[in-house]
Amino acid sequence: MINETYKAMLGGKSVIRTLSEYATARGKEIGYENVFDYSLGNPSVPCPPSFTKTVIDMYETAEPVVLHGYSPSLGLPGVRKVIADSLDRRFGMDYTLDHIFPTTGAAGALAHALRAVTEPGDEVITFAPYFPEYQPYVSGTGARLTVVPADTENFQINFDAFEQALNPGVTAVLINTPNNPSGAVYSAATLERLAGLLRDKQTEYGHDIFLISDEPYREIVFDGAEQPYPAKFYDNTLTCYSWSKSLSLPGERIGYVAVNPKATDAGLIVPMMGQISRGTGHNCPSSTMQLAVAKVIDETSDLSVYETNMNLLYDALTSIGFDVVRPGGTFYIFPRALEADANAFCMKAKDYDLILVPSDSFGVPGHFRMAYCVDTEKVKRSIPVLERFAHEVYGL
Amino acid sequence: MINETYKAMLGGKSVIRTLSEYATARGKEIGYENVFDYSLGNPSVPCPPSFTKTVIDMYETAEPVVLHGYSPSLGLPGVRKVIADSLDRRFGMDYTLDHIFPTTGAAGALAHALRAVTEPGDEVITFAPYFPEYQPYVSGTGARLTVVPADTENFQINFDAFEQALNPGVTAVLINTPNNPSGAVYSAATLERLAGLLRDKQTEYGHDIFLISDEPYREIVFDGAEQPYPAKFYDNTLTCYSWSKSLSLPGERIGYVAVNPKATDAGLIVPMMGQISRGTGHNCPSSTMQLAVAKVIDETSDLSVYETNMNLLYDALTSIGFDVVRPGGTFYIFPRALEADANAFCMKAKDYDLILVPSDSFGVPGHFRMAYCVDTEKVKRSIPVLERFAHEVYGL
Repeated sequence: MINETYKAMLGGKSVIRTLSEYATARGKEIGYENVFDYSLGNPSVPCPPSFTKTVIDMYETAEPVVLHGYSPSLGLPGVRKVIADSLDRRFGMDYTLDHIFPTTGAAGALAHALRAVTEPGDEVITFAPYFPEYQPYVSGTGARLTVVPADTENFQINFDAFEQALNPGVTAVLINTPNNPSGAVYSAATLERLAGLLRDKQTEYGHDIFLISDEPYREIVFDGAEQPYPAKFYDNTLTCYSWSKSLSLPGERIGYVAVNPKATDAGLIVPMMGQISRGTGHNCPSSTMQLAVAKVIDETSDLSVYETNMNLLYDALTSIGFDVVRPGGTFYIFPRALEADANAFCMKAKDYDLILVPSDSFGVPGHFRMAYCVDTEKVKRSIPVLERFAHEVYGL
Repeated sequence: MINETYKAMLGGKSVIRTLSEYATARGKEIGYENVFDYSLGNPSVPCPPSFTKTVIDMYETAEPVVLHGYSPSLGLPGVRKVIADSLDRRFGMDYTLDHIFPTTGAAGALAHALRAVTEPGDEVITFAPYFPEYQPYVSGTGARLTVVPADTENFQINFDAFEQALNPGVTAVLINTPNNPSGAVYSAATLERLAGLLRDKQTEYGHDIFLISDEPYREIVFDGAEQPYPAKFYDNTLTCYSWSKSLSLPGERIGYVAVNPKATDAGLIVPMMGQISRGTGHNCPSSTMQLAVAKVIDETSDLSVYETNMNLLYDALTSIGFDVVRPGGTFYIFPRALEADANAFCMKAKDYDLILVPSDSFGVPGHFRMAYCVDTEKVKRSIPVLERFAHEVYGL
């Protein structure tokens, strides 16, 4: 019989998807170059040529039955070792291949990490603003998501609200840094304070609290800075990664979970994720993609355009009069809307062919997200339109 | 906290994997060419050169940001249409793209199909012999699997036992034809009788019973025959497919669910599977793989070696004195063991470097599976070893 739970979910359509589809349809009317589509976080720069070359080389020279053969359900050992070694080199960790579980992107990583360290009925805490898909990721495991209100001053962590929310039912905390949608990069001070608090609460509650750190934007950090590595601060950390953004491969569904070797039962968690896979139908990501990312492990796309675009938009928005926190990374900016109702604000912007995403689904009212993974030329053309919109509608 | 259910699953290791790992280790001692490894169903013939060429062409000529961009969560519409058109052409169906959901192989397909048409607590019936991973696929949804004993005469369906097992708690029936491990191809008569019985029970119970048809071996059928298409016989059918075997791409994780347009709520099931994906972290298979299989939609690898191997083994086993049903397809054969305890039989065969899989995990006692997706030359060399083993140990 048809499952009634999933049937009932059919109404819920992502605001971002709806806006993106509107932008595409509007583009067909007036030319897509005339739609200032800031809706979707789809990378706008190509993968590095070395990635393309690597895949072509494999297809031209490898034995097809080997290249396309079954990967072990825990991933290709050689690939897992390359990932571990790279993280150890970059962040001073002690991963071995036994701590690495290749996945179908960050979605696959989060699905496995959440199931590994929660039981149905457990509470998982995340911090606003947060990626809306965290709701189905968490509810799909049988756990429930509690959202701690945002620190709207700088989009680090609202620790007062977090301390109030913590209780013995919390078994995992889910963070995303650099953050979608705010662009905030959690500082070492933030991560240190978070880790200290979690350690205290583990002792107080007498059970583990795992930190699940979602890091697909790890390599997109501005001003020459770096994202401090969260697992370095807290032993019970599962790091979830995707090459979607760093190598511009969102459609290829390739990422991993890295289990901190100092975590409780660290040696069991990857094999447990193998068992979880048997029930979700995940198995493992494409064998070719595993091999290909391993061959370009420390490379990225040319990500500089995102910083160029951020600076253009930040300066323009500030000079127009928007209240906006300067992003430290990602390809998002998250200004305060010019009226309290972010949906109304974004609807009015649509009349100017400015496609902005209202903040409510990110767990924060009164803001909007711009995904500036678009051509710089279009960003420049959008600025006078933003000015005209703010002036004509809001008198700025 | 560590999930205790998945932790408890860690003991359970697949017999097939264990034997395959033994064969690999033994190969390092005596040379893999001297191990008659019939353990693993990994295709032994390369993908068609047209597939390799298609992928290289895409990597050389397509815009990387388009080629590797996000696929919609329901899959690329153009790819879904190509799949629907091919099935319509081959099997006289009326699929449109709205009935096709691309997945990460048959495992992803089954995970979504099972969730779409069962509720936690429901009963799913399958028929022995069956693929052991059906247990975690079904239990992962919250439903439970009931196994109907085999028809060991010809490995069609034991309808008497099936009728006894049917009850109002059954909401789905899971079949696999051509069958792993028996090699049986369900006949039109079998599918007609199955459909009739399910229609009667739907009326009697007053609710839908879905047929989930797992068909990765659909194109490996011998003697010039074809697998009758199960969905043609029964409206409430979800067809699960993988290109793992027909294109020899098991590591690429690419397949689909096709929803019979005549099924209850046919138009809702694919969007529901999109919702299910949000909780499992599946999202969609690799965009490149979707595009690639669509470009070679009606091609297969050269599958003829499997029929050659089957004939060699069937004739040899029969002449040695084994009791064996001749496979109609797949690359498996499933003879009766020479003693009642199939595990003991396979352990003794190991002494001859014959790696055979005992039948118990397939839900049938006293048989063994040989996966003859190996070089014909090795099959030929294994025959005198089989003869010697049967003679020396069992006096045949």
